[in-house]
Amino acid sequence: MLSKSLSKYIQSLHHKKYRQEHGAFLVEGAKSVLELLTSDYRVEVLLSTESFYKENAPLLDKQRVRLEMVTPDELGRAGSLTTNDSCLAVAGTKENRVLVADNEEFVLVLDDIRDPGNLGTILRIADWYGIRKLICSSSTADVYNPKVISASKGSFTRVAWYYCDLAEYLGGLDGARVFGAFLTGGSVHTTDFGTTGYIVMGNESNGIGPEVERFVGRRITIPRYGEAESLNVGIATAVICDNLRRGR
Amino acid sequence: MLSKSLSKYIQSLHHKKYRQEHGAFLVEGAKSVLELLTSDYRVEVLLSTESFYKENAPLLDKQRVRLEMVTPDELGRAGSLTTNDSCLAVAGTKENRVLVADNEEFVLVLDDIRDPGNLGTILRIADWYGIRKLICSSSTADVYNPKVISASKGSFTRVAWYYCDLAEYLGGLDGARVFGAFLTGGSVHTTDFGTTGYIVMGNESNGIGPEVERFVGRRITIPRYGEAESLNVGIATAVICDNLRRGR
Repeated sequence: MLSKSLSKYIQSLHHKKYRQEHGAFLVEGAKSVLELLTSDYRVEVLLSTESFYKENAPLLDKQRVRLEMVTPDELGRAGSLTTNDSCLAVAGTKENRVLVADNEEFVLVLDDIRDPGNLGTILRIADWYGIRKLICSSSTADVYNPKVISASKGSFTRVAWYYCDLAEYLGGLDGARVFGAFLTGGSVHTTDFGTTGYIVMGNESNGIGPEVERFVGRRITIPRYGEAESLNVGIATAVICDNLRRGR
Repeated sequence: MLSKSLSKYIQSLHHKKYRQEHGAFLVEGAKSVLELLTSDYRVEVLLSTESFYKENAPLLDKQRVRLEMVTPDELGRAGSLTTNDSCLAVAGTKENRVLVADNEEFVLVLDDIRDPGNLGTILRIADWYGIRKLICSSSTADVYNPKVISASKGSFTRVAWYYCDLAEYLGGLDGARVFGAFLTGGSVHTTDFGTTGYIVMGNESNGIGPEVERFVGRRITIPRYGEAESLNVGIATAVICDNLRRGR
């Protein structure tokens, strides 16, 4: 049974303020938790239903982690998912450390991506396309938000991020190639992305802000063949990543 | 003020059963409604707030449509959006008429896409890439679901759809090129899509079902460069559309 104090602690982690205070976040559902357990994240406590434990006993017994058996009802009340009959973990957040593009590496830069679902989707896309680093504006959704973690389908364990003031960050890059996604610009079908660089994606409604736009050396766009006004930022990120990877 | 009978009618259209019974569906929010008003859909009634009416009076006065002035509160209670301070329209559904690919045309085929958000996103992507026809399995989400209409951001006015038994439909196509998205298959980066054909996208969890797979002549896949297990079906649809359009 879930103790009152643990239940209260988990509830607090639904909020960014307490995630930062405690340096901890929630990971929910079988797939995400199983990926978490084989990652380098520190796990504070794992809430498991009987059935999840039975299915994964060899793996779970190997973990040196505090394990609490709970009912699906308790999980539902503790977590953010509407249904969860498997598990929930509390994991330690990582230090916000600066990241830069190595040679032969592309890095995604997110300017004010507000929707947690979009951010989670972008983590999953980055992971599919082998992009291991995200640079996020301070106004971008908190990656430790349970909705982001959940939408990333486990990819949060394989992608690193650095939150910062983007203008300051980009201003400090010396001679780096910075591409930015706009509704007008060179076609991604003919852009020579080379083998390294930064790809800036902008806010859902307003695109890349003027402070960040100053640092974009090459404006790129996804050619439109019909009449929709725009593409969702997750969709656009995927199409751009596909274009920069093809032929390599 | 919204009458009880109209309010009840609108409430009923949240449910597929009543949308089918009444041959009507809901369109919510300024962007979607403005696109609806310039489309060939029949509009039964338009609920408008004072502010939406003031901003769009010339256009609204031109419409021969029953107009009801409402408060944002009434809109919120009537519709499915959490906030809506502009408008809501009741529009007539269209007849479910058979569609086929013309020469020089690609058609998307959706096998059991269950999530309304995904279906709405796919409408928007189809519209961006100039794809004007969708063939949907009977088990695919109802395109007139308010969540689909809303996620399509107005693109539902420019894309047509036909719901049917896919095996029967595909079995009846004579010599057509049918591509299907799988986790294994020929790379979309090197596939020669030609200028016409059908692109089958499968269910969110299970992909293309065996009944439909039999009719797929060419299995295609999106090359993976990292470790994510899969891509969301909306994301995959966009990447495939981008690949079939490039160079044309």
